Amino acid sequence: MGPNQAARGVRARARQAMRAEVAAAVQDLVLERGYEETTVDDICTAAEISRSTFFRYFPSKEDALFGTSADAGEHLRDALTARPPGEAPWIAMRRALDPLIEQYEAHDERTRRLTRLIVNTPSLAARHREKNARWHELLRPEIARRLGADPADDSDPRANALIAAALGCVEAALTAWTSTAQSQALAKILDRAMGAPSDLG
Amino acid sequence: MGPNQAARGVRARARQAMRAEVAAAVQDLVLERGYEETTVDDICTAAEISRSTFFRYFPSKEDALFGTSADAGEHLRDALTARPPGEAPWIAMRRALDPLIEQYEAHDERTRRLTRLIVNTPSLAARHREKNARWHELLRPEIARRLGADPADDSDPRANALIAAALGCVEAALTAWTSTAQSQALAKILDRAMGAPSDLG
Repeated sequence: MGPNQAARGVRARARQAMRAEVAAAVQDLVLERGYEETTVDDICTAAEISRSTFFRYFPSKEDALFGTSADAGEHLRDALTARPPGEAPWIAMRRALDPLIEQYEAHDERTRRLTRLIVNTPSLAARHREKNARWHELLRPEIARRLGADPADDSDPRANALIAAALGCVEAALTAWTSTAQSQALAKILDRAMGAPSDLG
Repeated sequence: MGPNQAARGVRARARQAMRAEVAAAVQDLVLERGYEETTVDDICTAAEISRSTFFRYFPSKEDALFGTSADAGEHLRDALTARPPGEAPWIAMRRALDPLIEQYEAHDERTRRLTRLIVNTPSLAARHREKNARWHELLRPEIARRLGADPADDSDPRANALIAAALGCVEAALTAWTSTAQSQALAKILDRAMGAPSDLG
């Protein structure tokens, strides 16, 4: 790695860390005051940054709230690509979700409250569906490869089906996790969710 | 069955037939002229009905376009309930979809064009998601029963997961079916789609 590449690596990591900081500040404030009630100015005051700094990292309040989940889609794809080649695609998908689920559990209370907020705010629910569509696109080539499907063959529904099914199971697991008193680990709930369509017993 | 009940049965069937007629007229006109370009007045002229008759069957143009798919959710639930009790839930779900898939195939060209229109019109795509949510609610008690789950236990994600996965597979199958020249039967495409998450290699 040359010095320019190293500098780019440091800058990229610093930018990602700053985005995560801003996103966390937005989430805290939105959970405290409500989504509509929180302005970009409030966020800048709380995070001690200028408006121009805020807009260097995110185009809008909504983007900032979902800031880290856009990055999470890329991490999910990387985790999927790193799974052993011979692993069944559904299992590889489940295992690729592990780091994301761990992150949700590490920020337990925040994830649960944010999930409820998103489900109950139509503009955020719409944005969440967009995010799902973006994750779908990110995962598609690798899932197609693992299924032995041609990613350019639109007549083969399997990659889209597997991803839609897996993301549907994640939604169901998050719903179960957030709608009840915290008794089970999210990872266990996701295991149960993803077991349901594949259990042909 | 007493005469009053028989009369109610006839009236209900007549109403359903009329709704199907109006919905078909709306679909034909929308596919011919475009969604935004078609007014309720155009529909009434084409179907030779008055505006008040139209509004007796559907509250809006959008509702009329989706008119029969609301009924389809109830038929899907009935088909699911009629499957043998010992059948694995994922298989029962696949088999319950058979009549719907047959109906889509019987109106082949119309289904494919409507699917493309819905995907490409944001307000219709949003309505389509609402319809999916409604189907989800209709199917949930019977899927929970078949999984041996308590439908009132929100901490069990399996019924929601199985339904989300199955409806995701239907979407993937419809996308594959409509995005390519018609070469495969929709039923075969759905078999491949629903095989993907349950094929553990």
